[in-house]
Amino acid sequence: MTDQREAARKSIGSRRSPDSAEAILAAAEGLLVDEGYSGFSIEAVAQRARAGKATIYRWWPSKAALLLDVYQRQKRDVEYPDTGDLEEDLFRFLHSLLRHWRETSSGNTFRSLIAEAQANEKARLALADYARERREEIGEMVQRAKSRGDAREDVEPIVVADLLASYAWVHLLIDRLGEPQEEIRRTVRHVLRGVLHQP
Amino acid sequence: MTDQREAARKSIGSRRSPDSAEAILAAAEGLLVDEGYSGFSIEAVAQRARAGKATIYRWWPSKAALLLDVYQRQKRDVEYPDTGDLEEDLFRFLHSLLRHWRETSSGNTFRSLIAEAQANEKARLALADYARERREEIGEMVQRAKSRGDAREDVEPIVVADLLASYAWVHLLIDRLGEPQEEIRRTVRHVLRGVLHQP
Repeated sequence: MTDQREAARKSIGSRRSPDSAEAILAAAEGLLVDEGYSGFSIEAVAQRARAGKATIYRWWPSKAALLLDVYQRQKRDVEYPDTGDLEEDLFRFLHSLLRHWRETSSGNTFRSLIAEAQANEKARLALADYARERREEIGEMVQRAKSRGDAREDVEPIVVADLLASYAWVHLLIDRLGEPQEEIRRTVRHVLRGVLHQP
Repeated sequence: MTDQREAARKSIGSRRSPDSAEAILAAAEGLLVDEGYSGFSIEAVAQRARAGKATIYRWWPSKAALLLDVYQRQKRDVEYPDTGDLEEDLFRFLHSLLRHWRETSSGNTFRSLIAEAQANEKARLALADYARERREEIGEMVQRAKSRGDAREDVEPIVVADLLASYAWVHLLIDRLGEPQEEIRRTVRHVLRGVLHQP
Protein backbone atom coordinates (compact mmCIF):
# COMPACT_ATOMS: atom_id res chain seq x y z
CA MET A 1 0.00 0.00 0.00
CA THR A 2 2.71 2.46 1.03
CA ASP A 3 4.85 1.33 -1.89
CA GLN A 4 1.99 1.82 -4.28
CA ARG A 5 1.36 5.27 -2.89
CA GLU A 6 5.03 6.16 -3.18
CA ALA A 7 5.02 4.97 -6.77
CA ALA A 8 1.92 7.03 -7.49
CA ARG A 9 3.52 10.12 -5.95
CA LYS A 10 6.71 9.64 -7.93
CA SER A 11 4.81 9.10 -11.12
CA ILE A 12 2.88 12.33 -10.53
CA GLY A 13 6.06 14.11 -9.45
CA SER A 14 7.97 13.12 -12.54
CA ARG A 15 5.46 14.83 -14.76
CA ARG A 16 5.71 18.09 -12.83
CA SER A 17 8.29 20.76 -13.49
CA PRO A 18 9.77 21.19 -9.99
CA ASP A 19 10.14 24.99 -10.21
CA SER A 20 6.63 25.52 -11.46
CA ALA A 21 5.21 23.11 -8.91
CA GLU A 22 7.08 24.90 -6.12
CA ALA A 23 5.85 28.29 -7.36
CA ILE A 24 2.28 27.04 -7.40
CA LEU A 25 2.51 25.55 -3.91
CA ALA A 26 4.05 28.77 -2.59
CA ALA A 27 1.34 30.82 -4.27
CA ALA A 28 -1.36 28.58 -2.82
CA GLU A 29 0.11 28.95 0.67
CA GLY A 30 0.41 32.72 0.31
CA LEU A 31 -3.14 33.00 -0.93
CA LEU A 32 -4.45 31.04 2.06
CA VAL A 33 -2.51 33.27 4.44
CA ASP A 34 -3.74 36.49 2.80
CA GLU A 35 -7.30 35.60 1.86
CA GLY A 36 -8.23 32.59 3.97
CA TYR A 37 -10.16 29.59 2.75
CA SER A 38 -13.08 31.66 1.48
CA GLY A 39 -10.77 33.40 -1.01
CA PHE A 40 -9.02 30.21 -2.09
CA SER A 41 -9.68 29.00 -5.61
CA ILE A 42 -7.63 27.36 -8.35
CA GLU A 43 -8.21 30.48 -10.44
CA ALA A 44 -6.77 32.74 -7.74
CA VAL A 45 -3.78 30.41 -7.23
CA ALA A 46 -3.17 30.42 -10.99
CA GLN A 47 -3.20 34.22 -11.13
CA ARG A 48 -0.87 34.54 -8.16
CA ALA A 49 1.55 31.92 -9.52
CA ARG A 50 1.25 33.28 -13.08
CA ALA A 51 0.42 29.74 -14.14
CA GLY A 52 -2.38 28.32 -16.22
CA LYS A 53 -5.40 26.78 -14.51
CA ALA A 54 -5.00 23.76 -16.80
CA THR A 55 -1.45 23.22 -15.51
CA ILE A 56 -2.63 23.26 -11.93
CA TYR A 57 -5.49 20.88 -12.65
CA ARG A 58 -3.13 18.55 -14.50
CA TRP A 59 -0.88 18.25 -11.46
CA TRP A 60 -3.53 18.48 -8.75
CA PRO A 61 -6.88 17.05 -9.79
CA SER A 62 -8.75 18.98 -7.08
CA LYS A 63 -8.39 21.84 -4.63
CA ALA A 64 -8.12 19.20 -1.90
CA ALA A 65 -5.13 17.54 -3.59
CA LEU A 66 -3.40 20.91 -3.84
CA LEU A 67 -4.17 21.72 -0.21
CA LEU A 68 -2.78 18.36 0.94
CA ASP A 69 0.51 19.11 -0.81
CA VAL A 70 0.62 22.65 0.62
CA TYR A 71 0.01 21.19 4.07
CA GLN A 72 2.68 18.52 3.72
CA ARG A 73 5.17 21.12 2.46
CA GLN A 74 4.73 23.32 5.53
CA LYS A 75 7.50 22.77 8.05
CA ARG A 76 6.18 20.44 10.67
CA ASP A 77 7.32 21.43 14.09
CA VAL A 78 5.32 18.64 15.73
CA GLU A 79 6.89 16.34 18.31
CA TYR A 80 6.49 12.58 18.38
CA PRO A 81 8.53 12.30 21.57
CA ASP A 82 9.92 9.21 23.27
CA THR A 83 10.33 10.15 26.93
CA GLY A 84 9.75 6.68 28.31
CA ASP A 85 6.43 7.84 29.77
CA LEU A 86 3.27 7.46 27.70
CA GLU A 87 1.36 10.29 29.37
CA GLU A 88 4.23 12.66 28.70
CA ASP A 89 4.64 11.47 25.10
CA LEU A 90 0.97 11.90 24.24
CA PHE A 91 0.66 15.22 26.06
CA ARG A 92 3.70 16.67 24.28
CA PHE A 93 2.51 15.41 20.93
CA LEU A 94 -0.97 16.94 21.30
CA HIS A 95 0.35 20.16 22.76
CA SER A 96 2.87 20.63 19.96
CA LEU A 97 0.31 19.76 17.27
CA LEU A 98 -2.24 22.31 18.53
CA ARG A 99 0.53 24.91 18.87
CA HIS A 100 1.82 24.19 15.37
CA TRP A 101 -1.68 24.66 13.94
CA ARG A 102 -2.22 27.79 16.02
CA GLU A 103 1.11 29.53 15.46
CA THR A 104 1.73 28.78 11.79
CA SER A 105 -0.50 28.95 8.77
CA SER A 106 -0.59 25.14 8.70
CA GLY A 107 -3.72 25.10 10.89
CA ASN A 108 -5.57 27.17 8.36
CA THR A 109 -4.32 24.97 5.53
CA PHE A 110 -5.44 21.78 7.25
CA ARG A 111 -8.78 23.33 8.15
CA SER A 112 -9.27 24.23 4.49
CA LEU A 113 -8.22 20.77 3.37
CA ILE A 114 -10.80 19.09 5.60
CA ALA A 115 -13.45 21.51 4.32
CA GLU A 116 -12.58 20.90 0.68
CA ALA A 117 -12.58 17.14 1.16
CA GLN A 118 -16.25 17.34 2.12
CA ALA A 119 -17.17 18.30 -1.43
CA ASN A 120 -15.47 15.37 -3.07
CA GLU A 121 -15.34 11.65 -2.26
CA LYS A 122 -11.90 11.05 -3.81
CA ALA A 123 -10.47 13.91 -1.78
CA ARG A 124 -11.97 12.36 1.35
CA LEU A 125 -10.22 9.10 0.54
CA ALA A 126 -6.90 10.95 0.17
CA LEU A 127 -7.51 12.69 3.50
CA ALA A 128 -8.41 9.37 5.15
CA ASP A 129 -5.23 7.88 3.76
CA TYR A 130 -3.17 10.73 5.14
CA ALA A 131 -4.92 10.42 8.51
CA ARG A 132 -4.10 6.70 8.65
CA GLU A 133 -0.38 7.36 8.16
CA ARG A 134 -0.35 9.92 10.98
CA ARG A 135 -2.31 7.63 13.31
CA GLU A 136 0.34 4.97 12.85
CA GLU A 137 2.96 7.41 14.12
CA ILE A 138 0.85 8.19 17.18
CA GLY A 139 0.17 4.50 17.68
CA GLU A 140 3.90 3.84 17.92
CA MET A 141 4.03 5.79 21.18
CA VAL A 142 1.37 3.46 22.60
CA GLN A 143 3.14 0.42 21.17
CA ARG A 144 6.33 1.40 22.96
CA ALA A 145 4.40 1.65 26.23
CA LYS A 146 3.08 -1.86 25.61
CA SER A 147 6.61 -3.12 24.94
CA ARG A 148 7.74 -1.57 28.22
CA GLY A 149 4.91 -3.36 30.00
CA ASP A 150 3.25 -0.05 30.98
CA ALA A 151 0.14 -0.50 28.86
CA ARG A 152 -2.29 -3.38 29.03
CA GLU A 153 -1.79 -6.27 26.60
CA ASP A 154 -5.25 -5.92 25.08
CA VAL A 155 -4.83 -2.25 24.18
CA GLU A 156 -4.80 -1.51 20.46
CA PRO A 157 -2.49 1.42 19.70
CA ILE A 158 -4.49 2.47 16.65
CA VAL A 159 -7.68 2.88 18.68
CA VAL A 160 -5.90 5.21 21.12
CA ALA A 161 -4.33 7.10 18.23
CA ASP A 162 -7.72 7.48 16.57
CA LEU A 163 -9.27 8.96 19.72
CA LEU A 164 -6.51 11.50 20.29
CA ALA A 165 -6.12 12.49 16.64
CA SER A 166 -9.89 13.03 16.41
CA TYR A 167 -9.76 15.18 19.54
CA ALA A 168 -7.06 17.33 17.90
CA TRP A 169 -8.88 17.67 14.57
CA VAL A 170 -12.11 18.79 16.19
CA HIS A 171 -10.21 21.32 18.31
CA LEU A 172 -8.96 22.78 15.04
CA LEU A 173 -12.39 22.71 13.41
CA ILE A 174 -14.15 24.54 16.24
CA ASP A 175 -11.36 26.98 17.11
CA ARG A 176 -10.21 25.46 20.35
CA LEU A 177 -6.50 25.47 19.52
CA GLY A 178 -5.82 27.59 22.61
CA GLU A 179 -6.89 24.77 24.95
CA PRO A 180 -4.87 25.21 28.18
CA GLN A 181 -2.09 22.70 28.78
CA GLU A 182 -3.84 21.34 31.86
CA GLU A 183 -6.95 20.54 29.79
CA ILE A 184 -4.89 18.65 27.24
CA ARG A 185 -3.15 16.73 29.99
CA ARG A 186 -6.48 15.98 31.65
CA THR A 187 -7.77 14.47 28.42
CA VAL A 188 -4.66 12.31 28.01
CA ARG A 189 -5.06 11.12 31.61
CA HIS A 190 -8.68 10.18 31.00
CA VAL A 191 -7.66 8.09 28.02
CA LEU A 192 -4.83 6.42 29.91
CA ARG A 193 -6.68 5.77 33.16
CA GLY A 194 -10.13 5.03 31.81
CA VAL A 195 -13.49 5.89 33.21
CA LEU A 196 -14.79 2.90 35.12
CA HIS A 197 -13.53 1.45 38.37
CA GLN A 198 -11.22 -1.33 37.29
CA PRO A 199 -12.20 -4.84 38.36
CA MET B 1 -26.25 31.48 28.28
CA THR B 2 -28.97 29.10 27.08
CA ASP B 3 -31.59 31.71 27.91
CA GLN B 4 -29.71 34.30 25.89
CA ARG B 5 -29.45 31.90 23.01
CA GLU B 6 -33.15 31.10 23.22
CA ALA B 7 -33.92 34.80 23.23
CA ALA B 8 -31.69 35.34 20.21
CA ARG B 9 -33.41 32.51 18.36
CA LYS B 10 -36.85 33.84 19.17
CA SER B 11 -35.90 37.32 18.13
CA ILE B 12 -34.62 36.00 14.79
CA GLY B 13 -37.61 33.69 14.46
CA SER B 14 -40.11 36.44 15.03
CA ARG B 15 -38.81 38.36 12.05
CA ARG B 16 -39.16 35.34 9.80
CA SER B 17 -42.32 34.41 8.00
CA PRO B 18 -42.73 30.77 9.08
CA ASP B 19 -43.98 29.50 5.70
CA SER B 20 -41.18 31.16 3.78
CA ALA B 21 -38.58 30.02 6.27
CA GLU B 22 -39.87 26.45 6.04
CA ALA B 23 -39.83 26.59 2.23
CA ILE B 24 -36.25 27.85 2.26
CA LEU B 25 -35.08 25.17 4.69
CA ALA B 26 -36.80 22.46 2.64
CA ALA B 27 -35.24 23.82 -0.54
CA ALA B 28 -31.82 23.89 1.09
CA GLU B 29 -32.20 20.29 2.23
CA GLY B 30 -33.40 19.17 -1.19
CA LEU B 31 -30.54 20.94 -2.90
CA LEU B 32 -27.99 19.22 -0.65
CA VAL B 33 -29.56 15.84 -1.39
CA ASP B 34 -29.60 16.42 -5.15
CA GLU B 35 -26.38 18.33 -5.70
CA GLY B 36 -24.23 17.72 -2.65
CA TYR B 37 -22.17 20.35 -0.89
CA SER B 38 -20.28 21.35 -4.03
CA GLY B 39 -23.55 22.49 -5.63
CA PHE B 40 -24.82 24.25 -2.52
CA SER B 41 -25.02 28.03 -2.66
CA ILE B 42 -27.40 30.68 -1.37
CA GLU B 43 -28.17 31.55 -4.98
CA ALA B 44 -29.18 27.97 -5.79
CA VAL B 45 -31.29 27.74 -2.62
CA ALA B 46 -33.00 31.01 -3.53
CA GLN B 47 -33.83 29.75 -7.03
CA ARG B 48 -35.17 26.45 -5.73
CA ALA B 49 -37.26 28.12 -3.01
CA ARG B 50 -38.36 30.93 -5.38
CA ALA B 51 -37.14 33.36 -2.74
CA GLY B 52 -34.87 36.36 -2.92
CA LYS B 53 -31.21 35.99 -1.98
CA ALA B 54 -31.63 39.09 0.23
CA THR B 55 -34.41 37.37 2.18
CA ILE B 56 -32.23 34.35 2.84
CA TYR B 57 -29.29 36.49 3.90
CA ARG B 58 -31.53 38.53 6.20
CA TRP B 59 -32.65 35.41 8.06
CA TRP B 60 -29.42 33.41 7.82
CA PRO B 61 -26.32 35.59 7.76
CA SER B 62 -24.19 32.83 6.24
CA LYS B 63 -24.39 29.49 4.49
CA ALA B 64 -23.25 27.91 7.76
CA ALA B 65 -26.17 29.44 9.69
CA LEU B 66 -28.58 28.06 7.09
CA LEU B 67 -26.93 24.62 7.20
CA LEU B 68 -27.15 24.52 11.00
CA ASP B 69 -30.90 25.14 10.82
CA VAL B 70 -31.33 22.53 8.08
CA TYR B 71 -29.39 20.05 10.23
CA GLN B 72 -31.40 20.78 13.37
CA ARG B 73 -34.66 20.46 11.41
CA GLN B 74 -33.80 16.96 10.17
CA LYS B 75 -35.49 14.32 12.27
CA ARG B 76 -32.96 13.04 14.73
CA ASP B 77 -33.19 9.32 15.15
CA VAL B 78 -30.24 9.28 17.56
CA GLU B 79 -30.41 7.45 20.88
CA TYR B 80 -29.22 8.84 24.18
CA PRO B 81 -30.07 5.62 26.01
CA ASP B 82 -30.19 4.91 29.72
CA THR B 83 -29.66 1.17 30.06
CA GLY B 84 -27.95 1.32 33.45
CA ASP B 85 -24.67 0.27 31.80
CA LEU B 86 -22.29 2.96 30.56
CA GLU B 87 -20.60 0.84 27.91
CA GLU B 88 -23.99 -0.05 26.46
CA ASP B 89 -25.21 3.56 26.60
CA LEU B 90 -22.16 4.97 24.83
CA PHE B 91 -22.03 2.17 22.27
CA ARG B 92 -25.70 2.58 21.37
CA PHE B 93 -25.35 6.34 21.16
CA LEU B 94 -22.34 6.21 18.82
CA HIS B 95 -23.79 3.42 16.74
CA SER B 96 -27.09 5.24 16.25
CA LEU B 97 -25.35 8.54 15.48
CA LEU B 98 -23.14 7.03 12.76
CA ARG B 99 -26.14 5.16 11.36
CA HIS B 100 -28.26 8.33 11.36
CA TRP B 101 -25.57 10.19 9.45
CA ARG B 102 -25.09 7.27 7.06
CA GLU B 103 -28.72 6.45 6.33
CA THR B 104 -30.26 9.90 6.13
CA SER B 105 -29.15 13.06 4.42
CA SER B 106 -28.27 14.54 7.82
CA GLY B 107 -24.69 13.25 7.54
CA ASN B 108 -24.19 15.17 4.36
CA THR B 109 -25.74 18.27 5.91
CA PHE B 110 -23.49 18.11 8.96
CA ARG B 111 -20.45 17.45 6.79
CA SER B 112 -21.31 20.55 4.75
CA LEU B 113 -21.88 22.60 7.88
CA ILE B 114 -18.45 21.73 9.26
CA ALA B 115 -16.90 22.58 5.88
CA GLU B 116 -18.69 25.91 5.63
CA ALA B 117 -17.73 26.84 9.17
CA GLN B 118 -14.07 26.69 8.16
CA ALA B 119 -14.51 29.75 5.95
CA ASN B 120 -15.96 31.94 8.65
CA GLU B 121 -15.05 32.53 12.29
CA LYS B 122 -18.57 33.44 13.42
CA ALA B 123 -19.88 30.27 11.88
CA ARG B 124 -17.23 28.30 13.73
CA LEU B 125 -18.40 29.85 16.99
CA ALA B 126 -21.98 28.80 16.22
CA LEU B 127 -20.77 25.29 15.44
CA ALA B 128 -18.73 25.19 18.66
CA ASP B 129 -21.80 26.33 20.58
CA TYR B 130 -23.90 23.59 19.03
CA ALA B 131 -21.18 21.03 19.77
CA ARG B 132 -21.11 22.08 23.42
CA GLU B 133 -24.85 21.50 23.82
CA ARG B 134 -24.56 18.00 22.33
CA ARG B 135 -21.55 17.14 24.50
CA GLU B 136 -23.56 17.97 27.59
CA GLU B 137 -26.14 15.36 26.54
CA ILE B 138 -23.42 12.75 26.08
CA GLY B 139 -21.83 13.79 29.36
CA GLU B 140 -25.09 13.02 31.17
CA MET B 141 -24.63 9.33 30.40
CA VAL B 142 -21.24 9.46 32.11
CA GLN B 143 -22.66 11.49 34.98
CA ARG B 144 -25.28 8.82 35.59
CA ALA B 145 -22.54 6.18 35.74
CA LYS B 146 -20.76 8.32 38.34
CA SER B 147 -23.98 8.63 40.35
CA ARG B 148 -24.37 4.84 40.25
CA GLY B 149 -20.81 4.50 41.53
CA ASP B 150 -19.68 2.74 38.33
CA ALA B 151 -17.34 5.50 37.17
CA ARG B 152 -14.41 6.91 39.07
CA GLU B 153 -14.99 10.06 41.13
CA ASP B 154 -12.32 12.06 39.31
CA VAL B 155 -13.78 11.43 35.86
CA GLU B 156 -15.09 14.51 34.10
CA PRO B 157 -18.09 13.65 31.94
CA ILE B 158 -17.40 16.45 29.48
CA VAL B 159 -13.91 15.14 28.73
CA VAL B 160 -15.30 11.71 27.89
CA ALA B 161 -18.05 13.31 25.81
CA ASP B 162 -15.49 15.38 23.93
CA LEU B 163 -13.41 12.33 23.04
CA LEU B 164 -16.33 10.29 21.76
CA ALA B 165 -18.02 13.14 19.90
CA SER B 166 -14.70 13.97 18.20
CA TYR B 167 -14.33 10.31 17.22
CA ALA B 168 -17.80 10.44 15.62
CA TRP B 169 -17.20 13.73 13.76
CA VAL B 170 -13.94 12.53 12.24
CA HIS B 171 -15.60 9.29 11.15
CA LEU B 172 -18.08 11.44 9.25
CA LEU B 173 -15.37 13.67 7.78
CA ILE B 174 -13.26 10.82 6.41
CA ASP B 175 -16.10 8.54 5.32
CA ARG B 176 -15.86 5.92 8.01
CA LEU B 177 -19.56 5.87 8.88
CA GLY B 178 -19.71 2.16 8.06
CA GLU B 179 -17.40 1.31 10.98
CA PRO B 180 -18.37 -2.20 12.17
CA GLN B 181 -20.23 -2.44 15.46
CA GLU B 182 -17.37 -4.36 17.06
CA GLU B 183 -14.95 -1.52 16.24
CA ILE B 184 -17.25 1.05 17.82
CA ARG B 185 -17.60 -1.14 20.91
CA ARG B 186 -13.84 -1.64 21.05
CA THR B 187 -13.33 2.11 21.08
CA VAL B 188 -15.87 2.61 23.85
CA ARG B 189 -14.15 -0.14 25.87
CA HIS B 190 -10.77 1.53 25.44
CA VAL B 191 -12.19 4.78 26.78
CA LEU B 192 -13.88 3.06 29.70
CA ARG B 193 -11.03 0.74 30.69
CA GLY B 194 -8.10 3.00 29.90
CA VAL B 195 -4.73 2.11 28.49
CA LEU B 196 -2.30 1.75 31.38
CA HIS B 197 -2.16 -0.93 34.03
CA GLN B 198 -4.06 0.55 36.94
CA PRO B 199 -2.10 1.07 40.13
